[in-house]
Amino acid sequence: MNRRLLLVSNSTLYGGGYLQHCQHNISDFFGKQVTRILFVPYALHDRDAYTRTARDKLSSLGYEVDSVHEAADPVEAVRKAEAIFIGGGNTFRLLKALYDNNLVTEIKKRVFQDGVPYMGSSAGTNVATVSINTTNDMPIVYPPSFSGIGLVPFNINPHYLDSDPNSRHMGETREQRITQYHEELNTPCVLGLREGSMLLVEGNKATLLGTTNARLFQRGKEASEHDPGSDLSFLLTDAQ
Amino acid sequence: MNRRLLLVSNSTLYGGGYLQHCQHNISDFFGKQVTRILFVPYALHDRDAYTRTARDKLSSLGYEVDSVHEAADPVEAVRKAEAIFIGGGNTFRLLKALYDNNLVTEIKKRVFQDGVPYMGSSAGTNVATVSINTTNDMPIVYPPSFSGIGLVPFNINPHYLDSDPNSRHMGETREQRITQYHEELNTPCVLGLREGSMLLVEGNKATLLGTTNARLFQRGKEASEHDPGSDLSFLLTDAQ
Repeated sequence: MNRRLLLVSNSTLYGGGYLQHCQHNISDFFGKQVTRILFVPYALHDRDAYTRTARDKLSSLGYEVDSVHEAADPVEAVRKAEAIFIGGGNTFRLLKALYDNNLVTEIKKRVFQDGVPYMGSSAGTNVATVSINTTNDMPIVYPPSFSGIGLVPFNINPHYLDSDPNSRHMGETREQRITQYHEELNTPCVLGLREGSMLLVEGNKATLLGTTNARLFQRGKEASEHDPGSDLSFLLTDAQ
Repeated sequence: MNRRLLLVSNSTLYGGGYLQHCQHNISDFFGKQVTRILFVPYALHDRDAYTRTARDKLSSLGYEVDSVHEAADPVEAVRKAEAIFIGGGNTFRLLKALYDNNLVTEIKKRVFQDGVPYMGSSAGTNVATVSINTTNDMPIVYPPSFSGIGLVPFNINPHYLDSDPNSRHMGETREQRITQYHEELNTPCVLGLREGSMLLVEGNKATLLGTTNARLFQRGKEASEHDPGSDLSFLLTDAQ
């Protein structure tokens, strides 16, 4: 399996510009052989403005950007893509648009069969996993399913946030929400990617990159912490 | 229309016990004529434990509690209910269970046709509105629809939270999330109920109760602040 994925927790890190904190990871990931990247702006309402933002940044790294929303036939655009980048925003809006445009199966096929490199950020990371059951977003639209593209056999919680011991707000903490998910039957494990971290997947090897630890939640087990550089390849086997 | 609703933002306020901050509102709302309340514990995994918590609190206020999950026939339990209370937890889990048990239409009928008083807290408030599109919860299960019971013609965001100017976290603020909802077509207005506030609806009259302001979001308009005691009856007309 020649799958190649870069699953980023967040597009912007506090104090930095769009994709600035991970720009060297992006350059390493797409490398010199990729010249054009197909961008998917579906997670934000203003697709033109979002495409401009992505195009500006990726062109500064040496890549041309086509946006799937500018293509006459989005499926055909995916079929021809050298590389795919799905940006962040609202995960429900993004997944619904992927289904509405028949792209879920097509993207999976390109990644698994043709080795097309896939980069996701935030919502674009959520939809790459088993399901969007562990997104943080507000369910502003109703997608036909919560199933994601399924490029990895586990879920991710991007923008993972530790609970604030001084908070007086009584909403559930992020850890409590993920624990509620694991009260449901047959739920896969959830990798909490703190802002600043990302997961690189190359075939059956998974490596945590970035500057922050990740927290892993497995149903019926204690949560565990993993440093940047950790080998998380065990997450890629189906029986976790 | 003799609908009577008490829609509470949060079950527990910082430093207090379960339903403590709104216990006098509960007593006023159900009054002396109600003797038994049908409790719906579907939003939490452990329904027995949750029922004990609700039973303990409501019996201290003088009400007997039956739980719908203990009934042989949940629909029949709703048909016979004197009063209904749906508790908080995970909104997706709650709404799915309401659909799975065929209770959505039945509860609506009892409230609108028979004037059965309905109290909701947090997730139980979300499901009483047009839709759960503005819940804060993690989508841990996939309900057959996001449409709620429709006891009011607008949406509520419970546990409404102002943004923290000192935060370095880059996830969307609550206001940004609701703004994203209003980027979608034909979306109703959203009443942000801060912790400590609740909405009392009696027929076509709506009054904000509790100790905190509410923030109202209307599509294409500036958000507005409303003090406790405000008359919000204008929200009950369909053309907002």
